[in-house]
Amino acid sequence: MILNILSWASVLEAVFFLFPALVAVIYGEQVLWIYLFCAFLCAALGLLLRLLRPRENTMYAKEGFFAVALCWILFSALGAVPFVLTKEIPNYVNALFETVSGFTTTGASILSRVEDLSHASLFWRSFTHWVGGMGILVFILAILPGKGNGSNVHLMRAESPGYSVSKLVPKIRQTALILYAIYFGMTLAEILLLIICKMPVFDAITLSLGTAGTGGFGVRSDSIASYTALQQNIITVFMILFGVNFNFYYLMIIRKFRSAFGISEVKVYLVIIVAAIALITWDINALFPSLGDALHHAAFQVGSIITTTGFATTDFNLWPSFSKTILVVLMFIGACAGSTGGGIKVSRIMLLVKGIKNELAVSAHPRSVRKVKMDGHSLSPEIIRSVNSYFALYIIIFAFSLLIVSLNEMDLTTNFTAVAATLNNIGPGLAVVGPTGNFADFSVVSKLVLIFDMLAGRLELLPILMLFIPPSWKR
Amino acid sequence: MILNILSWASVLEAVFFLFPALVAVIYGEQVLWIYLFCAFLCAALGLLLRLLRPRENTMYAKEGFFAVALCWILFSALGAVPFVLTKEIPNYVNALFETVSGFTTTGASILSRVEDLSHASLFWRSFTHWVGGMGILVFILAILPGKGNGSNVHLMRAESPGYSVSKLVPKIRQTALILYAIYFGMTLAEILLLIICKMPVFDAITLSLGTAGTGGFGVRSDSIASYTALQQNIITVFMILFGVNFNFYYLMIIRKFRSAFGISEVKVYLVIIVAAIALITWDINALFPSLGDALHHAAFQVGSIITTTGFATTDFNLWPSFSKTILVVLMFIGACAGSTGGGIKVSRIMLLVKGIKNELAVSAHPRSVRKVKMDGHSLSPEIIRSVNSYFALYIIIFAFSLLIVSLNEMDLTTNFTAVAATLNNIGPGLAVVGPTGNFADFSVVSKLVLIFDMLAGRLELLPILMLFIPPSWKR
Repeated sequence: MILNILSWASVLEAVFFLFPALVAVIYGEQVLWIYLFCAFLCAALGLLLRLLRPRENTMYAKEGFFAVALCWILFSALGAVPFVLTKEIPNYVNALFETVSGFTTTGASILSRVEDLSHASLFWRSFTHWVGGMGILVFILAILPGKGNGSNVHLMRAESPGYSVSKLVPKIRQTALILYAIYFGMTLAEILLLIICKMPVFDAITLSLGTAGTGGFGVRSDSIASYTALQQNIITVFMILFGVNFNFYYLMIIRKFRSAFGISEVKVYLVIIVAAIALITWDINALFPSLGDALHHAAFQVGSIITTTGFATTDFNLWPSFSKTILVVLMFIGACAGSTGGGIKVSRIMLLVKGIKNELAVSAHPRSVRKVKMDGHSLSPEIIRSVNSYFALYIIIFAFSLLIVSLNEMDLTTNFTAVAATLNNIGPGLAVVGPTGNFADFSVVSKLVLIFDMLAGRLELLPILMLFIPPSWKR
Repeated sequence: MILNILSWASVLEAVFFLFPALVAVIYGEQVLWIYLFCAFLCAALGLLLRLLRPRENTMYAKEGFFAVALCWILFSALGAVPFVLTKEIPNYVNALFETVSGFTTTGASILSRVEDLSHASLFWRSFTHWVGGMGILVFILAILPGKGNGSNVHLMRAESPGYSVSKLVPKIRQTALILYAIYFGMTLAEILLLIICKMPVFDAITLSLGTAGTGGFGVRSDSIASYTALQQNIITVFMILFGVNFNFYYLMIIRKFRSAFGISEVKVYLVIIVAAIALITWDINALFPSLGDALHHAAFQVGSIITTTGFATTDFNLWPSFSKTILVVLMFIGACAGSTGGGIKVSRIMLLVKGIKNELAVSAHPRSVRKVKMDGHSLSPEIIRSVNSYFALYIIIFAFSLLIVSLNEMDLTTNFTAVAATLNNIGPGLAVVGPTGNFADFSVVSKLVLIFDMLAGRLELLPILMLFIPPSWKR
């Protein structure tokens, strides 16, 4: 059954490779043949995997985790091949880092000059963000003929961000289709708006793909800095929109406005954004000619970091400590559950605070019994336990990654923010890995650790960890 | 009832002031009169508070928390007075910082040259460590005539480190007496050993008081660097011993050796220490003339940081990133529950890991039911919930403190390790607040935040937080 999914994933990637191939045709680039060859390779592998017929058709939670983790690793491993064949990123580990960074919507790069890449490869980089943002498995579920719905929910649960998956409609396949429809529509809206505001078509498409997936790969070395203020503001708004829980949009579409605006996670998310923008604007005001300028840059960077996109209009590494610390805190908070963004997620932070309130109350009055509630529903002990384990796991993965990465002899801020930027799927960190820097100088071991962190962050820790812990392979 | 305890605390502090007064007599120092005056002041305040008779005699959990928090604040506020009157630390906020740092066994200092202080004040600084190490309330419980045992357990629970208080014997008062007897005996043993190894008597006494409380104030500006290697090694061993769960010693005394060596927290604590020493020795080997030298310094610093003492024999701020990162991780781990050390505590980290294992198992096999066990007992959901809330609270207090402290325009490493060093009650951090630096350059607001962090860290977050959150004052 896992093989079955892997075969579908390969075929899907073959189809995806046709898009950069098309871009190569348009720009008359030589790399066309490489992308076509890669597409052929993936298709062949997919058919080969299909020959190994599945023994059983049902899938349990554990197989779901394994399937998702393996699928993402296969997708990344294959996706890195064109970079190596075109010699644009000759080193395979670097190419893998770049591809994983793409699919996990991190946006951390090992390239110092992206302008050297062909249009086809630049498009492929941004396209991986778009695919990774909503999820590879969700895509497969959306296009696959729906069979065995009961087991598919395990797949979706393992891949989706957030502590619980709310099926929008009873059928998994339809839920996946609706999500992709919203996603596609919003991406198209951004592309059109940017083109109307006179951005070159190629830039508008790639940047919109990067915004939609909350990825962060740009097509210029200075990220978004050289575009007009209006174009930057459009991206700011869309970054923040893609960080909103997609349930909100679904409820809006079916005209349940009251329910949509009742989602407390969305409200808290917006309050955090407004507060962070206000504080940073106040702090960096002296660095810019006018208050409007400071506000403009503060809003872009806050939107970029909290949604874990990672675009930059200015080198925030040069900002005062207070603003940098706010950005570091936002890195960990992340976007809403059920969005394309990464990080810990606003709803998990809310549960954290609710848990503390509960504990304070219980400590003061030991005999009182209280339940933790969210949006009017009280949460089951299983959800609370799983959120707590998430935090525990998060802290431990963070600490171990930091230890291994610190073998690189870079400063503590670089190491700390490099791990934070990859585990939270953001992209740039501070110091050496700041907006103007890149991840090329890390050792191979560190790059592998950061690749692991990006995958762990995107798949919400559990699936990827299970794959690396032999005891969980047992039945 | 709370007033009753505060009055006892004042009287107790009056008695404590007589010790530095005695030191002043020995060295013929003028500050004698100041310490005697302070003692008189405390005694008068204590009698005044006694006149306000308690309305009720029973005490609930919430009153226990409030009593402990207020008691520590009063103790610190009074303890800072002599520093101001002697003009050794003329600024009251600085004096309060130094005193809170003493009682909470942090050891973070705002002084750049401790040699300028009188012997009496140096002794008072170290003596606050010793008193704070085992706890002010535990002391009061030990000497008070035992009345209302049922309510006293709330006091002890609110002050003791660790997620659960195991009463060694049924009576609280006897438990407190046994703990202080072990504490006193071990301190005396260290003093005698240091004197035998030719350390000056004054240094031997003050450093032993600092080691016992896992505090970190020294009597020389270079901390422990200028003592002989043998004397340093004695301190290394005693630091590690004072970081062990005191239940271990009690079980040893009553000859339950099997139970004593069965405490898994102590085993994990020792394994972490050995692993950290080995890794750091390997990493810093090139900096020292011999492997023995590297091992000697690695062992001292590891012992000092994991037990949250904060002494230093060398400027570890100059060590490579890997070693510094290990020390930062040790800062957060901390010593055993039930010891005088701070930090998150080894047993909480163990529960964290056990929780993850449990979650991995449950995720893979959703229908299985498992219990988290520790030393053979399965833990109640209340304990697990309270440990999880502890982590949540810890993270949030850390983030807020970091944000406010970052208004100082110091680098991220300084701000991060300053908060880590105070919230975990260690003392020195890295960069500006490294072993050769001090906390004098922070703003008044930052110092107040760090004072809050030290108290929050020592009292394990809840009591001090309740005091600062108005809604919890209600019945």
